[in-house]
Amino acid sequence: MYPDTDFFAVAGRQRACRSYTDEDVDDSVIARLLHTATRAPSSENTQPWRFVVVRNAATRAAIGSLIREIWEAGGRNHTEKRADPALFRDVDRGLGGGELAAAPVLIVVGGDSGVSHRAHLESSVFPAVQNLLLGATALGLGSCLTTITSLRSDEMRALVGFPPEIHPIAVIPIGHTARTLLPPRRDPLEAKVHGERFGEPWPSHDAMDAR
Amino acid sequence: MYPDTDFFAVAGRQRACRSYTDEDVDDSVIARLLHTATRAPSSENTQPWRFVVVRNAATRAAIGSLIREIWEAGGRNHTEKRADPALFRDVDRGLGGGELAAAPVLIVVGGDSGVSHRAHLESSVFPAVQNLLLGATALGLGSCLTTITSLRSDEMRALVGFPPEIHPIAVIPIGHTARTLLPPRRDPLEAKVHGERFGEPWPSHDAMDAR
Repeated sequence: MYPDTDFFAVAGRQRACRSYTDEDVDDSVIARLLHTATRAPSSENTQPWRFVVVRNAATRAAIGSLIREIWEAGGRNHTEKRADPALFRDVDRGLGGGELAAAPVLIVVGGDSGVSHRAHLESSVFPAVQNLLLGATALGLGSCLTTITSLRSDEMRALVGFPPEIHPIAVIPIGHTARTLLPPRRDPLEAKVHGERFGEPWPSHDAMDAR
Repeated sequence: MYPDTDFFAVAGRQRACRSYTDEDVDDSVIARLLHTATRAPSSENTQPWRFVVVRNAATRAAIGSLIREIWEAGGRNHTEKRADPALFRDVDRGLGGGELAAAPVLIVVGGDSGVSHRAHLESSVFPAVQNLLLGATALGLGSCLTTITSLRSDEMRALVGFPPEIHPIAVIPIGHTARTLLPPRRDPLEAKVHGERFGEPWPSHDAMDAR
């Protein structure tokens, strides 16, 4: 059974997957996801994205340990106070319990400040990251955007051999999902969208109902 | 004739559109794009994205003037030296010539540091921005990711009334494209992807050929 690959359907079902089965994902599938990632726009078309595909168990475990350390050192406490309890448990098992780094493939994403100003890296790399996540979703695979390792850039760099000019931006596990994904919870558009000036309502109810 | 909305087809044909016709875009279409944008992931599901839909001609002209000023003050020179000549001409007409801000709709995107740490705003907002751009592409509309106004945040804030905690992240014109879009130019995956460690090749040729 193939999932619906219509763009709006795919975007609508994207969820963070933080627990994976042992089932592998072929390099041909990873190549398709990376090809799709690199269709994204970047500042001056500099394409500053750099990807390291990690399958080695020792490297994945080391990335998992780094994630756990950062999580225990402060992230856990911070998130427990703020996030929805179900989301917190899911994140805690993923980051603290090592479930996330146990995915068969971790794609480590860097941004090269040698070709694009440091201040432009995020705007040039996260659209590619989102293409990668949507591609995984389109193919029925689990994936998750994690940026926690950016908090200890030098250690993350060392784990995959990034030189100093490449900034660790994200780690994306890819695999088959082991748990039912959490339902989406999103604020209504009315809370996020304004017309002409911030604070002003947008738009007519007719338009909002048409979505 | 409706364009192919398969995710991989949409991601493959996304291009920056920097010149628009006068043809309008309905609020119902904009609502659909914004709904799709807000399906994207965000740090701790904080959804720090804020959108202002600008149709007012005076506001669009003011945003166009700000963009032109920033471009003339340094961006133009910088980009002329580095970018491909066809891309430079396109960007120069879009930013310097005001063609970009002449789109019927400008979506001003902000990130709210009141709900998400400033350092996490880009990772939480650009995936939503990419959903918006892909949605426009899926519907056959032109769009473009511009971040140049972030260089003069206070002036950009004033134009749409963002309070100090909301950081201007991007301005996205939406409309119907007036010129043939530039062909994609992307480096081969081999130049961007490594296996296990940066600098190591990835993967077998079989996998690369399968994309």
